[in-house]
Amino acid sequence: MTDLDRIFRPRSVAIIGASTDPRKVGGRPLHFLKKHGFNGDIWPVNPRKDQIEGFQCFPNIESLPGVPDVAVILLGPSLVIPAVKELSEMGCGGAIILTGGFAEAGENGKERQKSLKTAAASMRLLGPNTIGLLNLRNGVILSASGALDEKSLQSGSVAVVSQSGGILGSLFSRATARGIGLSYLAATGNEVDIEVSDVMAFLSDDEETKAVAVYLETLRNPEAFREAASLLSTAGKKLIVYKVGRSETGAQAAASHTGALVGEDGLFDAFFRQVGAIRVKRYSDLIDLASGLSLTPIVKGNRLAILTHTGGAAGLVADLCGIVGFETPAPSLETAGKLRRLLEDEGFAPDRNPVDLTLSGLDPEIVYRAIITLSTSNEYDSIVAVVGSSSVGRPYMVADPVIRAAATEDLPIVVYTSAHTPAIVTKLNGKGVAVFDAPEACASLLAASLQPDGENNERAPALVEPINLPTVSGQLNELECREIFASFGIPAVKAIGIKNSAEGPDAASTLGDSVVIKILSREILHKTEIGGVKIGVSSRNCEKACDDIASAVNRHGISTNEGFIIQENLSGATEMIIGFYNDPVLGPAIMIGAGGTRAELLNDTASCVLPVSVADIRTMLASLRMFPLLKGYRGSTAANIDGLVEIIARFAHMCGCLGSRLVEAEINPLFVDDKEILPRAGDGILIFSN
Amino acid sequence: MTDLDRIFRPRSVAIIGASTDPRKVGGRPLHFLKKHGFNGDIWPVNPRKDQIEGFQCFPNIESLPGVPDVAVILLGPSLVIPAVKELSEMGCGGAIILTGGFAEAGENGKERQKSLKTAAASMRLLGPNTIGLLNLRNGVILSASGALDEKSLQSGSVAVVSQSGGILGSLFSRATARGIGLSYLAATGNEVDIEVSDVMAFLSDDEETKAVAVYLETLRNPEAFREAASLLSTAGKKLIVYKVGRSETGAQAAASHTGALVGEDGLFDAFFRQVGAIRVKRYSDLIDLASGLSLTPIVKGNRLAILTHTGGAAGLVADLCGIVGFETPAPSLETAGKLRRLLEDEGFAPDRNPVDLTLSGLDPEIVYRAIITLSTSNEYDSIVAVVGSSSVGRPYMVADPVIRAAATEDLPIVVYTSAHTPAIVTKLNGKGVAVFDAPEACASLLAASLQPDGENNERAPALVEPINLPTVSGQLNELECREIFASFGIPAVKAIGIKNSAEGPDAASTLGDSVVIKILSREILHKTEIGGVKIGVSSRNCEKACDDIASAVNRHGISTNEGFIIQENLSGATEMIIGFYNDPVLGPAIMIGAGGTRAELLNDTASCVLPVSVADIRTMLASLRMFPLLKGYRGSTAANIDGLVEIIARFAHMCGCLGSRLVEAEINPLFVDDKEILPRAGDGILIFSN
Repeated sequence: MTDLDRIFRPRSVAIIGASTDPRKVGGRPLHFLKKHGFNGDIWPVNPRKDQIEGFQCFPNIESLPGVPDVAVILLGPSLVIPAVKELSEMGCGGAIILTGGFAEAGENGKERQKSLKTAAASMRLLGPNTIGLLNLRNGVILSASGALDEKSLQSGSVAVVSQSGGILGSLFSRATARGIGLSYLAATGNEVDIEVSDVMAFLSDDEETKAVAVYLETLRNPEAFREAASLLSTAGKKLIVYKVGRSETGAQAAASHTGALVGEDGLFDAFFRQVGAIRVKRYSDLIDLASGLSLTPIVKGNRLAILTHTGGAAGLVADLCGIVGFETPAPSLETAGKLRRLLEDEGFAPDRNPVDLTLSGLDPEIVYRAIITLSTSNEYDSIVAVVGSSSVGRPYMVADPVIRAAATEDLPIVVYTSAHTPAIVTKLNGKGVAVFDAPEACASLLAASLQPDGENNERAPALVEPINLPTVSGQLNELECREIFASFGIPAVKAIGIKNSAEGPDAASTLGDSVVIKILSREILHKTEIGGVKIGVSSRNCEKACDDIASAVNRHGISTNEGFIIQENLSGATEMIIGFYNDPVLGPAIMIGAGGTRAELLNDTASCVLPVSVADIRTMLASLRMFPLLKGYRGSTAANIDGLVEIIARFAHMCGCLGSRLVEAEINPLFVDDKEILPRAGDGILIFSN
Repeated sequence: MTDLDRIFRPRSVAIIGASTDPRKVGGRPLHFLKKHGFNGDIWPVNPRKDQIEGFQCFPNIESLPGVPDVAVILLGPSLVIPAVKELSEMGCGGAIILTGGFAEAGENGKERQKSLKTAAASMRLLGPNTIGLLNLRNGVILSASGALDEKSLQSGSVAVVSQSGGILGSLFSRATARGIGLSYLAATGNEVDIEVSDVMAFLSDDEETKAVAVYLETLRNPEAFREAASLLSTAGKKLIVYKVGRSETGAQAAASHTGALVGEDGLFDAFFRQVGAIRVKRYSDLIDLASGLSLTPIVKGNRLAILTHTGGAAGLVADLCGIVGFETPAPSLETAGKLRRLLEDEGFAPDRNPVDLTLSGLDPEIVYRAIITLSTSNEYDSIVAVVGSSSVGRPYMVADPVIRAAATEDLPIVVYTSAHTPAIVTKLNGKGVAVFDAPEACASLLAASLQPDGENNERAPALVEPINLPTVSGQLNELECREIFASFGIPAVKAIGIKNSAEGPDAASTLGDSVVIKILSREILHKTEIGGVKIGVSSRNCEKACDDIASAVNRHGISTNEGFIIQENLSGATEMIIGFYNDPVLGPAIMIGAGGTRAELLNDTASCVLPVSVADIRTMLASLRMFPLLKGYRGSTAANIDGLVEIIARFAHMCGCLGSRLVEAEINPLFVDDKEILPRAGDGILIFSN
């Protein structure tokens, strides 16, 4: 029994500060436990009462008849800490602190929260400032949420975890209105101890839970979240996440040059994808998709049959499923023949999909047989059945035959109710058939249930370990960057450093007809803006070009005392950018994108949190708008994509090795050429902490 | 009284083929008329009955006691046409054909539909294959939709028009479940006569209707739609559209080179924007946003106050409103002071926004005064009030004070219900306060209600009329294109046509150090792919470059017997593309975008249906990802955007003038330079019909 087991599946519950009024916050937990049939011990503590709702009441913690597995704390802020200390010392498994006035309430509250943590010692804490938790399988209602007041609870396979208590109540209310069965719910509040990730890890061991819906306002520990997500994934449970903060401009991230290209929220998208979570961007999808995924088998392909008795709604669903990649092929002649035998009606065209039985076919037996015909045809990977206005209030028309068919058929059957049909929605969800009144949710569920492409058996990238890790600090100049890149196996274009303009022509003559000349300086990040770069210079113009650069940068107060760098002038290669940055929330991350001086303008980037897999790198590449250019566009040769993956992996490896000492790293441009050559750095930035 | 007045506001209704069973399609219209209190004459026609539901029944049309304003036809397909002919001849105002089996049912049906149209002569027809129409103000229920069976009807200010009858039922059902009041509903079915646009035009004259929700499966007459949208806009009524077909690949459009760059659905986006309609992409937004817009005053700015008693839900709304551009500034010291005087509670921080009254502030009088304080502060342009789980089932807590405040305050107040609260939703909608249970809908409504920027008083573009319209046909070569462009005021870069390679050097020497050489041919559209273009050629290499081009294109079976074109080699200008194409549904359209050989790759385009206004052109430009480049990027000079607008307007004017003879037109690249110079065509295509 892990720590969280004692909290989520207690045999005894103490309610510290229980009140006698079941409509008040202080009275609700006891009332809910009684009402929903918790069969362990219930020990209310209240010095002014002998009993509450028939339970013996204890004057204080000391007088409890045993050590409770969990205690619900309903006291005022000043009384919480001594109570927690006493409970911890007696060996209580955990305390749920419904009380507010801690870290969410300014500096004093933050101090109070620290003391709370100290007082708890090894005892687990949920909250403070939480609405509590529910275990619907065992009637464990350790919550004071008003959303529970008049509800019957339906146990099922969806767990809900939220940092906000109000949102937990909202999701609970929406789920019960739809007949969605829940297993556990928990609000983690201020997360002084138990975080969302801890609850996720606990749920990965729960047999009945099949999908976990998580509402996040922030992420305190990305690494723990990644590990908990991995546990859920290994256990075959779906993880669906809604994360607020999409409108935040990520001010801190923007302070870093590379970070500004990405935006914090885009990195969250990548992070959730990397950890195998499905991020929804529509609030209602959080509970709807979690429920749908808990009920629906894997969709093995994109051939969708739509069965309907109303054309409009079926067309709507077909269109939305089409947008996410599903096709609605017509039935074969054989299947159409079978359908025709079910319904001899002038208006019925059995050779079309959506299969529109029309109002004449609105007969439970015909609907059932049509589903079986489509399912057994092996021509479809999933079925959407439509409940139109004409069958509202008559669940036996469509809902019942769907329930009957779903019991025997392996392929996913999803129901879309076109009109407002709460009775049909609750009935279908209750019987384990996914049902939605938003047509977009049907499409989202099918897309999220689609079997991923075959396993990625690519060889691991050949990472290069440097002989010595660099011991430098501060910002490096370009020549120093090239050396460190090289030590991690990242090549650069040919270049020569010179001390002054007089050395230019000799150096240039070894690098071809036309060269690039740049100022060498550890003081500047963007050479182009200050006139520090000349492209396409011939050797005879080289000295003058150096002098021109010197006078241009001088106008910006920059000297050329580190000299210049003369570099071969590549043409025809595709320019990309790779960058590293430290996201203030998610930590070390890399970004790739369309490069060159217009990188920000094109804003064609993708990012991932470190560490990255080869699959992550390929996903990033494929998401770029410029990806077709790399694959070979309008007759041009395909770029060395495998080599590019290798270089990105080596760059990420470098950033990982350099660790927290690394402040910023960037290669821009990275020249990506055709198959013979590994991509090469055309310029770079490295900044280390001092 | 217009024709549609007689149909939508009849004084007499004949029901041809009325049945006695009010649960059957044939019996419903009469039953609904009676139930909902239609106070005109009701004349059922059925040769086998003397009376139905207390109304005298007539054996045939001939025996009717007068000329009906409208007739509902419930007959089988074969009987419809004679009935329609008879009704038309007696002077009936219109017939609503609920019967199916016409154009939607194959070739025979199409023929039948033609005969139907002929039989109707000047009498108006709704349908066939329609579910009918409703006028909820006068109890005119000329429909057999099962969605009406057990509903009480709430009259209001939202009209609904749909091509699909099933969707009309769905929208009706969803609206009544939310307490949304409706004025008129109509399904246009096969649109043999009355189209969606006709109903829109009719509604523009209706005083009570404030918003029109339109569900489109196709658009038969874009011009009529544009005119009807304009009537609605002039009358101050909102138009909200949902259009299916987003997943269609637009195969026909793709047949045209330029069309393939745009995609049919993107042009629909532009078209709806051009005609002032709000296109929603989420089905539930169609009725929700129409209702919200019918109830909510204009939002005059983006300063939003959120009033709540639960933090999580308020944060969710703030985030989503932030995404669409709203800010939630904290109250001023003065306003915070006023709020503080309303509620002395430790947990209440009156200097924050969202203004979280906490559970302690969940008192109707405090909620009311807080709204008034925020409204009268002049610090906010709109307010969202949140109903959390704790006030579910207690509408007096938040809903009542919002209703009270909304009655006196001018600024928009919108309610978000976090939990499942059907009673609160219907109550608020019924009292004229916009309310949503989807937080995204709050954000969509505020964004859609936001006052547009000030009027655009730009000068009209100086269009150029050619002396003679061209009389050519087929595909033109580049020199011919340049002449026609010039006749419409579109300049081109300097160029000289030569007959053979020997003439190259002389021509080139007049055009600068380095020139562009291209094959001149009316046979090819894409010169680059077949080696027909050389860039950066010096005059001495000119002859050889021509010969190289000749041998390259020869390998593709192309001759150089029209010669070559030598053109100045521009650098530094931004390359754009302008194209014309004929959309199969929306008709003549133009497209602009990032140009050059990578135009398709960048896929950075915008389009508009002709005719276009200057505002349309500026909207297109501003929507391009490359727009910052035109405005001056990283120190580069801003491009001549006014000149670009002028050239695009001239191009659109040219396409309009050339009319249906024009098959394809394109300028790519269009070189857009700095302020001194008008943009110039670098290459072009014109194809005329033969």
